[in-house]
Amino acid sequence: MDNPKSLQFIDELTSYFNTLPGVGKKTAQRYALQLLKHDDDFLKSFGKTLSELKSKIHECSICHHLSEKPICEICSSPVRKDDLICIVEDIRDVIAIENTGQFHGKYHVLGGIISPMDGIGPSDLNIESLVDRIKKSSKIIEILLALRITMEGDTTNFFLFKKLKGLDVKITTIARGVSFGEQIEYTDEITLAKSIINRVPYES
Amino acid sequence: MDNPKSLQFIDELTSYFNTLPGVGKKTAQRYALQLLKHDDDFLKSFGKTLSELKSKIHECSICHHLSEKPICEICSSPVRKDDLICIVEDIRDVIAIENTGQFHGKYHVLGGIISPMDGIGPSDLNIESLVDRIKKSSKIIEILLALRITMEGDTTNFFLFKKLKGLDVKITTIARGVSFGEQIEYTDEITLAKSIINRVPYES
Repeated sequence: MDNPKSLQFIDELTSYFNTLPGVGKKTAQRYALQLLKHDDDFLKSFGKTLSELKSKIHECSICHHLSEKPICEICSSPVRKDDLICIVEDIRDVIAIENTGQFHGKYHVLGGIISPMDGIGPSDLNIESLVDRIKKSSKIIEILLALRITMEGDTTNFFLFKKLKGLDVKITTIARGVSFGEQIEYTDEITLAKSIINRVPYES
Repeated sequence: MDNPKSLQFIDELTSYFNTLPGVGKKTAQRYALQLLKHDDDFLKSFGKTLSELKSKIHECSICHHLSEKPICEICSSPVRKDDLICIVEDIRDVIAIENTGQFHGKYHVLGGIISPMDGIGPSDLNIESLVDRIKKSSKIIEILLALRITMEGDTTNFFLFKKLKGLDVKITTIARGVSFGEQIEYTDEITLAKSIINRVPYES
């Protein structure tokens, strides 16, 4: 039996939520029905924010991070160091690293990772613009690869290493080791081995 | 470190998604960033649907289900039986039962369940309107209680039973038994016992 006509509007809203990552039909419907409990002002401003998203947020023409202007706040910041570029897969990684407060260089967002299984090759990523950026700037000294620690991450690291090695930059990667709060017993062998090989003096 | 100003708009959208049930800050941000991949038309119509929600959807004045008109399609339908009212906790239950296509009566949505732990008492639910509805209509013969099979559901069933027993209606509840696809071995004892006590002839 079809839902009565009166719920077509809820169905419409449900189908929008259904497009979100990991949100199935039941969850999407739950979201739609939950929103009915909010007042009209809340819904109107939520709706307005959504409608304006594309006109307010653009991609930075230098690093491909999100921005309200053609060049993002990090790229145009006078206090951020120009000599260190951190290569990340996604804008979420920029946000995560910014939240640590430990990085003061600039970024380059690849927009993905080399993954033949998903049909993503080097040409689908912002690699050419990275090469251009390094060639054009004499200030860049170091490229820090901060990609995920997986086969695909390693493949992309290796591709970038080959691509950039002719250029006059130092290439580094983030340290691999045992995570904060992790138990040694349950740490995988590769990570544990890396953490022993890359051991650091206690006082640091 | 605070997020750069350019992400305030994303933060705003994130905070809206953060109000959805079971959606934490990380998931909300994931939703907001995912939406950037859609085109402007999609976002504008998603936003419009959200903004119009309250003006398009109301509560049926008879059964408290959702409706575009003062009286919902089920209550105003000439083909739905007037003699049987199914009592449910939530509008989602109406949708679930409608999807079975097996129920042809009408509904009454309580808007919750008696739960002293959550501070929800009988006066917070649409119980008085149910009593009025039964008193005003001579057509209602049976009240089918379709509440969740928990302590709270049983408490609410018992309260409704006491409240309605003076009125000239038959009170029934949905059958309790082993769910479709469930293994006998893993079925809880109460359900299993009920399913044995309420056994039905094989041909039905």
